Amino acid sequence: MKEYFEQVGKIQYEGPESVNPLAFKYYDPERMVGGKKMKDHLRFAMSYWHTMTGGGMDPFGNPTMERPYNTLEGMELAKARVDGAFELMRKLGIEYFCFHDLDIAPEGDSLKEKLENLDVVVGLIEGKMKETGIKCLWGTTNAFSHPRFLHGASTSPNADVFAFAAAQVKKALEVTHQLGGENYVFWGGREGYETLLNTDTGLEQDNLARFLGMAKDYARKIGFNGQFLIEPKPKEPTKHQYDFDTMTVLGFLRKYGLADDFKMNIEANHATLAGHTFQHELNMSRINGVLGSIDANQGDMLLGWDTDQFPTNIYDAVLCMYEVLKNGGIAPGGLNFDAKVRRGSFEPTDLFISYIVGMDTFAKGLLVAQRLLEDRVLEDFVAERYSSYQEGIGKKILEGATDLEELAAYALEHDKIVNRSGRQEMLEDVVNRYIYKA
Amino acid sequence: MKEYFEQVGKIQYEGPESVNPLAFKYYDPERMVGGKKMKDHLRFAMSYWHTMTGGGMDPFGNPTMERPYNTLEGMELAKARVDGAFELMRKLGIEYFCFHDLDIAPEGDSLKEKLENLDVVVGLIEGKMKETGIKCLWGTTNAFSHPRFLHGASTSPNADVFAFAAAQVKKALEVTHQLGGENYVFWGGREGYETLLNTDTGLEQDNLARFLGMAKDYARKIGFNGQFLIEPKPKEPTKHQYDFDTMTVLGFLRKYGLADDFKMNIEANHATLAGHTFQHELNMSRINGVLGSIDANQGDMLLGWDTDQFPTNIYDAVLCMYEVLKNGGIAPGGLNFDAKVRRGSFEPTDLFISYIVGMDTFAKGLLVAQRLLEDRVLEDFVAERYSSYQEGIGKKILEGATDLEELAAYALEHDKIVNRSGRQEMLEDVVNRYIYKA
Amino acid sequence: MKEYFEQVGKIQYEGPESVNPLAFKYYDPERMVGGKKMKDHLRFAMSYWHTMTGGGMDPFGNPTMERPYNTLEGMELAKARVDGAFELMRKLGIEYFCFHDLDIAPEGDSLKEKLENLDVVVGLIEGKMKETGIKCLWGTTNAFSHPRFLHGASTSPNADVFAFAAAQVKKALEVTHQLGGENYVFWGGREGYETLLNTDTGLEQDNLARFLGMAKDYARKIGFNGQFLIEPKPKEPTKHQYDFDTMTVLGFLRKYGLADDFKMNIEANHATLAGHTFQHELNMSRINGVLGSIDANQGDMLLGWDTDQFPTNIYDAVLCMYEVLKNGGIAPGGLNFDAKVRRGSFEPTDLFISYIVGMDTFAKGLLVAQRLLEDRVLEDFVAERYSSYQEGIGKKILEGATDLEELAAYALEHDKIVNRSGRQEMLEDVVNRYIYKA
Amino acid sequence: MKEYFEQVGKIQYEGPESVNPLAFKYYDPERMVGGKKMKDHLRFAMSYWHTMTGGGMDPFGNPTMERPYNTLEGMELAKARVDGAFELMRKLGIEYFCFHDLDIAPEGDSLKEKLENLDVVVGLIEGKMKETGIKCLWGTTNAFSHPRFLHGASTSPNADVFAFAAAQVKKALEVTHQLGGENYVFWGGREGYETLLNTDTGLEQDNLARFLGMAKDYARKIGFNGQFLIEPKPKEPTKHQYDFDTMTVLGFLRKYGLADDFKMNIEANHATLAGHTFQHELNMSRINGVLGSIDANQGDMLLGWDTDQFPTNIYDAVLCMYEVLKNGGIAPGGLNFDAKVRRGSFEPTDLFISYIVGMDTFAKGLLVAQRLLEDRVLEDFVAERYSSYQEGIGKKILEGATDLEELAAYALEHDKIVNRSGRQEMLEDVVNRYIYKA
Ligand SMILES: [Co+2]
Ligand SMILES: [Co+2]
Ligand SMILES: [Co+2]
Ligand SMILES: [Co+2]
Ligand SMILES: [Co+2]
Ligand SMILES: [Co+2]
Ligand SMILES: [Co+2]
Ligand SMILES: [Co+2]
Repeated sequence: MKEYFEQVGKIQYEGPESVNPLAFKYYDPERMVGGKKMKDHLRFAMSYWHTMTGGGMDPFGNPTMERPYNTLEGMELAKARVDGAFELMRKLGIEYFCFHDLDIAPEGDSLKEKLENLDVVVGLIEGKMKETGIKCLWGTTNAFSHPRFLHGASTSPNADVFAFAAAQVKKALEVTHQLGGENYVFWGGREGYETLLNTDTGLEQDNLARFLGMAKDYARKIGFNGQFLIEPKPKEPTKHQYDFDTMTVLGFLRKYGLADDFKMNIEANHATLAGHTFQHELNMSRINGVLGSIDANQGDMLLGWDTDQFPTNIYDAVLCMYEVLKNGGIAPGGLNFDAKVRRGSFEPTDLFISYIVGMDTFAKGLLVAQRLLEDRVLEDFVAERYSSYQEGIGKKILEGATDLEELAAYALEHDKIVNRSGRQEMLEDVVNRYIYKA
Repeated sequence: MKEYFEQVGKIQYEGPESVNPLAFKYYDPERMVGGKKMKDHLRFAMSYWHTMTGGGMDPFGNPTMERPYNTLEGMELAKARVDGAFELMRKLGIEYFCFHDLDIAPEGDSLKEKLENLDVVVGLIEGKMKETGIKCLWGTTNAFSHPRFLHGASTSPNADVFAFAAAQVKKALEVTHQLGGENYVFWGGREGYETLLNTDTGLEQDNLARFLGMAKDYARKIGFNGQFLIEPKPKEPTKHQYDFDTMTVLGFLRKYGLADDFKMNIEANHATLAGHTFQHELNMSRINGVLGSIDANQGDMLLGWDTDQFPTNIYDAVLCMYEVLKNGGIAPGGLNFDAKVRRGSFEPTDLFISYIVGMDTFAKGLLVAQRLLEDRVLEDFVAERYSSYQEGIGKKILEGATDLEELAAYALEHDKIVNRSGRQEMLEDVVNRYIYKA
Repeated sequence: MKEYFEQVGKIQYEGPESVNPLAFKYYDPERMVGGKKMKDHLRFAMSYWHTMTGGGMDPFGNPTMERPYNTLEGMELAKARVDGAFELMRKLGIEYFCFHDLDIAPEGDSLKEKLENLDVVVGLIEGKMKETGIKCLWGTTNAFSHPRFLHGASTSPNADVFAFAAAQVKKALEVTHQLGGENYVFWGGREGYETLLNTDTGLEQDNLARFLGMAKDYARKIGFNGQFLIEPKPKEPTKHQYDFDTMTVLGFLRKYGLADDFKMNIEANHATLAGHTFQHELNMSRINGVLGSIDANQGDMLLGWDTDQFPTNIYDAVLCMYEVLKNGGIAPGGLNFDAKVRRGSFEPTDLFISYIVGMDTFAKGLLVAQRLLEDRVLEDFVAERYSSYQEGIGKKILEGATDLEELAAYALEHDKIVNRSGRQEMLEDVVNRYIYKA
Repeated sequence: MKEYFEQVGKIQYEGPESVNPLAFKYYDPERMVGGKKMKDHLRFAMSYWHTMTGGGMDPFGNPTMERPYNTLEGMELAKARVDGAFELMRKLGIEYFCFHDLDIAPEGDSLKEKLENLDVVVGLIEGKMKETGIKCLWGTTNAFSHPRFLHGASTSPNADVFAFAAAQVKKALEVTHQLGGENYVFWGGREGYETLLNTDTGLEQDNLARFLGMAKDYARKIGFNGQFLIEPKPKEPTKHQYDFDTMTVLGFLRKYGLADDFKMNIEANHATLAGHTFQHELNMSRINGVLGSIDANQGDMLLGWDTDQFPTNIYDAVLCMYEVLKNGGIAPGGLNFDAKVRRGSFEPTDLFISYIVGMDTFAKGLLVAQRLLEDRVLEDFVAERYSSYQEGIGKKILEGATDLEELAAYALEHDKIVNRSGRQEMLEDVVNRYIYKA
């Protein structure tokens, strides 16, 4: 079988002192961290779209990526990408992948041809999976790129488009099930509006809920027991997307009785586009019991679009893994690198370097988070800070055993309030020191 | 009784041709619009805080506002402000006011004194209301300015602060009830976090829900049957506030079984700080049946804080009134000018000019929106746009009478999708032309 | 000759009462406004790229635009677009066009072929210009789309790229000169950096200055006497672009002695991406004597990328034309619609509607601005506001005839300052009333 | 003499392993780094305003800071603050301070009294400086807080205000000179506009230039030979400030012939409010030879106002010190902590902790930056990246020895461009590894 990335061999763990860009400095998959292997904490996944299909196009520029299969087309290209993808994952030691239907197989001239193309490639992938032991973290459908979705998919004003999207999801569910996918993701890139002047938001949201309900029913019918995930994003490509952020999606799911079946796939860059930190979105998902999986990337805080950069910010990685550990882990989800190499990082080697950098950043983040939790430096501070709710009037509040009248009477007797400092600066420095030392 | 604003008389309607800054050009309270008086559509309210208490301070500057009662202090000042407020409302023909407890009466040295101060001023206000016929749109408590609330009120880590806030809300409910307030508002300016490093968001949100539940129970017990409103705001003063926006609040309320008792008080500037248009927030509230009341102001889209400007943007006013009309009106809520004159507009005359400008903007907005709806220019376009859901497969979708398998089979037969243009540019121009002509 | 847009005839002026989407309501080209024809105030131009070449692609979606020449390719497509462009301009009564070399002719396999392609199409365009009387407002080169420019053009770290860009500009200057272009534009979409970690900003900015100097020298040598324009944009596609905004460009030009030869081409959407209003950028250019031309479009204030929407906001149009009138007009520049129809406005008719809407918005804006200036409502207020500089100590300040010591002595005697209100709210309402009535 | 902060002693260096919040872990003042003492690299300064005067007020809340001199008023308070300030600096080992006139002495009822108050406190400070060896990094005047400046100071439409500001600057220059200040800063918090509708920006900017010229002349006359600094800020409190960012200020200074006498005081939080990274502003200043001094703080990238947080982000500190080292040091400027403790960090101990955290962050940043430069990891990459300008056509470009014609001829022969990857991800990881290890 053709080797596409001959210039790069199997990536090894060489430890923090290594200066080899093609080696891991922190990611040591079998290392035990808090009683679990590093790789089982992190469950890294390759994103098929950015890694195998993305070409480096931007709104003002053409593709730049030099890839060994650039000369191929159609199904030949699709097949070469399967080989390339598994070679890359094997060399990097990545055990999961995520995909849209359209990433792996070309569109075709009809829906029928589209579905047939898919079957061919899925067969190839299945073979590769058996051969390598690599698994499918999640599948999804692309119902946003084709012009037919220009006004939405399940929220299109055109019922035929709704039906087309349904056909795609049906197939994507089947394919994900066939590949043993552990989750199925919904990202509604066109599910929103460009202008309220032409939009019936009520009908559209009702339809979105109907669509999710039908998808769930069909999946259960065919025996798919994976987790359903919704990936919030506030805008881009659409002016406003209905799945704005975690709390918005929860508001929606709870309205339509869907809250028990869907969790969140939190992406760092989508969090910041919504005006939140990455940790905020993880935290909101965690305390609501819906932290399902993670798209591990990073945005540029001064740019207003989804840059999907490979994650290198250690603060974000630490606080992400902190939430993951407090969540009891991320499985059956994982950390999917929904990240693309910069347009100027166009050489195949950059693909490897960037995955290594991302994996090292989260491996280091895991080590720091684990030590923070073991030492209980934040945990003890927080426990002490809220200790007034462990007794007296505070305890009655938590137990729901009081009312405004009792509280008002209490307050009249206790109106000289004594607060304590929140010590924000000290705690920020604590995180720094754990980063420097872990 | 002392007249504080002698330089300004009763403001008259003079019509669109007037160039008198102290006259209405569009607001003609008794004029019938679509079968209802203009004033009953708009239900304008004065905000006590910005109008009577605000001094023009900003983070880098001292108060600038020249007010006739600037030389007074304590309860004398509070009493003078009552007179000034009713004089201003009477001259402007504003029939409602909104207030925090702290706007109308000084803090005092103890909770007891605080409550007593309140009783004195509430008595005065009651007298003025009887005398003038002016009503209370809503009351609320200020649980964010005093240092005791520096870590939150009902979400404070200190149970004594929770109790103190409860005492304040109890009194504010009583006072609002006493004054016949038609609504009661919760704005959680400190209900959120400064840093996640020291915050137990789960406990805090549970406590926020408990607090709202207790408030509701007490209000019903004392016979207050007004509407409860939550005013979303994403941030400022706090880094993150739990009541981020409408959908976030709905997610929260639905979790805790509070969704039937609370509606939204939508503020334009809070919408834009959350990354939404004003119309978006109104629309999301409307389609979820929770559009309760409106804080009519405007922000500066290039500034990242709550500028609370008097509303002069006609687009926002038109689209606001469009949502209000589609909502069947805003009562028992209203349009409260949660707006402050610019720091450089420090003369008493600016207060009057600014209210006139705001009232005219929304009066014109009402006229435009009413004509848009009467002519059905947007309505018919939208109806036609979604017409595929009125028959065939679309109808089955709306009725919940189909599933993925049927839809997929349908799509295989109907995979040559024909969409129609959304005509965004044309519709934006339609709004322009109605503005020019209304 | 083939007619491409058969469904649309010559667009007529029908006046404000018309409801025909394919008619002008305000743009009446020969109407005299303040002693000059409307069309000579506005000097509208078609943007070749968005109008003829743009397909509606976005970072998550494929082209959507239905165009009659969609089936053609290469030079055949280029030639059809020439016909289509002149048909569209003729039907709309647009007398100018703007273009990049790459918009009108395909890239080719070598630089030589690229230049030859250009010559063929330029010949065709020249013929069309003679036939129709339509003129070239400005030309430019596209040194940002091709992968060779991925690290910049004149600021590339690769000297060969600098040379290639020089060759392009040389040809583009020749072609613009050949077509009688009245201006030549530089937009540095890749002239900036993605990360400071790999960038020598000093060398790059020096090179940018050298490049502009060489371009100027060559242009003068071949007899091109048009105006050079720089179009500021802060970011996108690059993380940071050197030509951030007007003041930044002036800082740059003044450093390198280029300030006398370059003016600004101000784009509305670039202004807002830089954190400024459209009027701000126009104003800064005007008071520095460098307001050269305008890219008339609009952005979405809640989206962080260049949406390049057709302009429909009347406030922006009024304040733009206000600056243009105070500038003594915009010639030899013009108002170029650097605007694209929305991705969902994919029908050919939308192209016409959108141009009509944009032209009407600015025609109305001109009428309002002209009346504001004729009535001197803002002018007189401003003159009065600064009147203290017309005499006494103020006059000495303006004349540079005083110093800190004299001023301090004066201040000791005049330390009870009396300011007057800035009346912001009143002035915002004045603009509203002129919009409603013009 | 009274000790105000009895709970805190002299802060000691305890090294990276210390967990004592009241000890330095990285800041070891006498440690040699690259041939210079750490303290001489960093030149830390205390900001008098945030540290001694700031009370924790925000737009929605009252002061919270518990300070030992909170019970005092007027001149008594001013005197106590002098003692407190020098005690704090001595205990922290901070050798410089920065101040506005208004921070150290109260306003008074007249300009005369204001100036007299100042003399009294300056005398006290002078004594303390002799006693402790602590020096003045820079002085400035507060021409933004008092209502008289509500429309600007040197850009006020009121000539009397211009004169008053001149009197303040005259005195502030004298006082700074008297205290041996090494720099004098201009921050124009009200030098800008709230609305263009009432503003003559041309006259205002001319006046600003006149004002700076007069200040320079007077300073030189009295023998002050310190560096003049302008501190850019784009907005807040004013809607738009003329000193938007470094490049804007350079554009302004170069226009008015002031470029040789003014450098920049770069504040991290002002950089991000302007849409730039901290490093960007430092870099732009450095390559233009105007990096004068630094306000070391940090903002919140998701909040739109100046939060002035104590700096804890190690990335910003590393890249700041990297620019400082490449600048050949920051003297006669320094690193002024223009930072305030969070409103919830209200205990006196938080003041010490926060300074320690800030100082440690920059000490660590210095160590990392120094090693990055010593190892030339970025330097060598950049040199290689631009190496094509060291010979052949590239060399001719740098030397200004070529023109468009020669370049175009060259390009025709060299049109198969070969670029190399920019390796952004690899370089970001390099910075990480130096942080982990330094
Ligand atoms: Co994602
Ligand atoms: Co993304
Ligand atoms: Co409000
Ligand atoms: Co507000
Ligand atoms: Co443009
Ligand atoms: Co643009
Ligand atoms: Co500062
Ligand atoms: Co600041």
